[in-house]
Amino acid sequence: MKVDGQHFRTIWLKPEDDRVVQLIDQRFLPHRFAIEDVNTVEQMATAIRDMHVRGAGLIGASAGYGMYLATLEAVQSGSFERQLASAAAQLNRTRPTAVNLAWAIERQLKSIAEVKIAQDKIDIARQTARQIAAENEEHCRMIGEHGLPLLQEIAQRKNGKPVNVLTHCNAGWLAFVDYGSATAPIYAAHDRGLPVHVWIDETRPRNQGSKLTAWELGQHGVPHTVIADNAGGHLMQRGDVDLVIVGTDRTTYTGDVANKIGTYLKALAAYDNQVPFYVALPSSSFDWTLRDGSQIPIEQRGAEEIKNAEGWLEGRQVEVGVAPEKSPAANYGFDITPKRLVTGLITERGVCKADEKSILTLFPEHAP
Amino acid sequence: MKVDGQHFRTIWLKPEDDRVVQLIDQRFLPHRFAIEDVNTVEQMATAIRDMHVRGAGLIGASAGYGMYLATLEAVQSGSFERQLASAAAQLNRTRPTAVNLAWAIERQLKSIAEVKIAQDKIDIARQTARQIAAENEEHCRMIGEHGLPLLQEIAQRKNGKPVNVLTHCNAGWLAFVDYGSATAPIYAAHDRGLPVHVWIDETRPRNQGSKLTAWELGQHGVPHTVIADNAGGHLMQRGDVDLVIVGTDRTTYTGDVANKIGTYLKALAAYDNQVPFYVALPSSSFDWTLRDGSQIPIEQRGAEEIKNAEGWLEGRQVEVGVAPEKSPAANYGFDITPKRLVTGLITERGVCKADEKSILTLFPEHAP
Repeated sequence: MKVDGQHFRTIWLKPEDDRVVQLIDQRFLPHRFAIEDVNTVEQMATAIRDMHVRGAGLIGASAGYGMYLATLEAVQSGSFERQLASAAAQLNRTRPTAVNLAWAIERQLKSIAEVKIAQDKIDIARQTARQIAAENEEHCRMIGEHGLPLLQEIAQRKNGKPVNVLTHCNAGWLAFVDYGSATAPIYAAHDRGLPVHVWIDETRPRNQGSKLTAWELGQHGVPHTVIADNAGGHLMQRGDVDLVIVGTDRTTYTGDVANKIGTYLKALAAYDNQVPFYVALPSSSFDWTLRDGSQIPIEQRGAEEIKNAEGWLEGRQVEVGVAPEKSPAANYGFDITPKRLVTGLITERGVCKADEKSILTLFPEHAP
Repeated sequence: MKVDGQHFRTIWLKPEDDRVVQLIDQRFLPHRFAIEDVNTVEQMATAIRDMHVRGAGLIGASAGYGMYLATLEAVQSGSFERQLASAAAQLNRTRPTAVNLAWAIERQLKSIAEVKIAQDKIDIARQTARQIAAENEEHCRMIGEHGLPLLQEIAQRKNGKPVNVLTHCNAGWLAFVDYGSATAPIYAAHDRGLPVHVWIDETRPRNQGSKLTAWELGQHGVPHTVIADNAGGHLMQRGDVDLVIVGTDRTTYTGDVANKIGTYLKALAAYDNQVPFYVALPSSSFDWTLRDGSQIPIEQRGAEEIKNAEGWLEGRQVEVGVAPEKSPAANYGFDITPKRLVTGLITERGVCKADEKSILTLFPEHAP
């Protein structure tokens, strides 16, 4: 999507030199927009581990490009196979819980093994990296196309008044290669001239909403307002939210949704106020093995994220204390929204209900 | 309650010189504990306006003491009556929406008018100020006594395991003279040796939970854990919350509860998980004129509170940016929790259901 009027993706090959990967270093957003040149597997591992890039889709794409860099390094080493395996292991270690990471690395290893000559291996790795990114982008674009009618219907009903969408965390293009998941229908609507306005939960403790979603919507020109995570229920009571769209880190094939902590609270408020609550996801976010959302493990992160707030002060990024030094804090990363609160799922193949039968009708290849 | 082992109230007359009011300057908590000497009406007006003191109950008590200081100043001026009226007007202007403020000033003016001699006026103003504070304290203490059995029952059922209470914002002793409202049953239980643990919502954007509630519970020795506002629903889904107790800024005589933004979301989650949800309030927080919570006006505050986080950095209090400079933000101060989500109200006269009949049975003098 657009940054300062120019179209960007989150990751790409350097036009002047396709042995270099470029990516948006997201650590300093929204205060500083930085593009990083990634020349080595080591650098890519750092970029993934230290969250220069984040979001399931983008982590997968980054790992794909990382494996392409690995082939460039491997041909220069004495032993191609050993070097490649070592790079794969290094990349795999960066974010152990991200399934897309292992999946992209595995896909690259298979592609590279299909050809014999070193230059062919490089070529096929470059091609596969681009393909992984392009598929990611295309899935998000299709989520936008399938979600668009939901907004169009509301716009028609509201007679030209803006469609108010509430979203939580960042399920935007910054978490993928382009378009995003929850944001894809919003961008699709905005780009077609529909009046859209987005309420953005700031999403404590890491503020991905106020830092990333607000930045990307603002850069693309989508009207939006940042709110405290506490405010969404009140806005729905007032009738100021027409639609909730969120992303997901993992959704069971029965329709239970794991997403950033706080999503469940917004789903409850949406249900209580008859506001449609949609989850947008590429099919790679389905877990085809889990029947019950309560089986999804919930990551516990460090207390310091709760006890501090990270922000921008006089040109530098700092952490300020917002709690007594001696007070303990607990930091749960995700919660589970049960399917009964989910109006529907927006996928690259279409919109379906959040239940096993509807999901498997769209994705019959995963039927037992 | 206790601070560093010593018993404190939020406001009192200086023991060595009862022409001076002392109060805890809450602006720097939890990072710095400061006691302020207030010698003049001007200083008290500043303390209320600039939120050295805050919370409905404490604002009322501060206004009461402010009017006592006014009598001291008035006797030294040429015209007692004019000076007193001017002081009353000055104090009244500090926080225009706080009903307790006007109520305390009015009560003082009436008391002072009852006697003729200047010294008598000073004496009765001192006595009334003390009385307003003492009544406030006593109401909170009784809320604790009436709420205590709720925790005792749970403790019995849990066989000695800690009773987990969740609270939002600061309805603690720092918002009153002592005990607090939502915290009063917690302190009562803790002081009687019941094992209690409190989940404290940080309460963005002003973080009264992580800054004030965490500090006061920690100082009094009550086990607690600070959480993001997003986390409460997940904790209830896990069965880690036995009881929710919150305060209120205003409750209709029919049982609808206006409280800090985000309260409604926790009430929804409590209802969805069959967790009892109680509101603790002195009867001064009832609005005997409003039938419907939706009629309560909701304060909108400045966007900068959302776009920044205030915290402590290297020994000073700073504000750091947590959103794009150009992004708009909306800052609603309160939301309405409808009575259907409220298990009960804990008042100084006892616990009742959140409905008109039950409330008026406890407070028959307000029956129409």
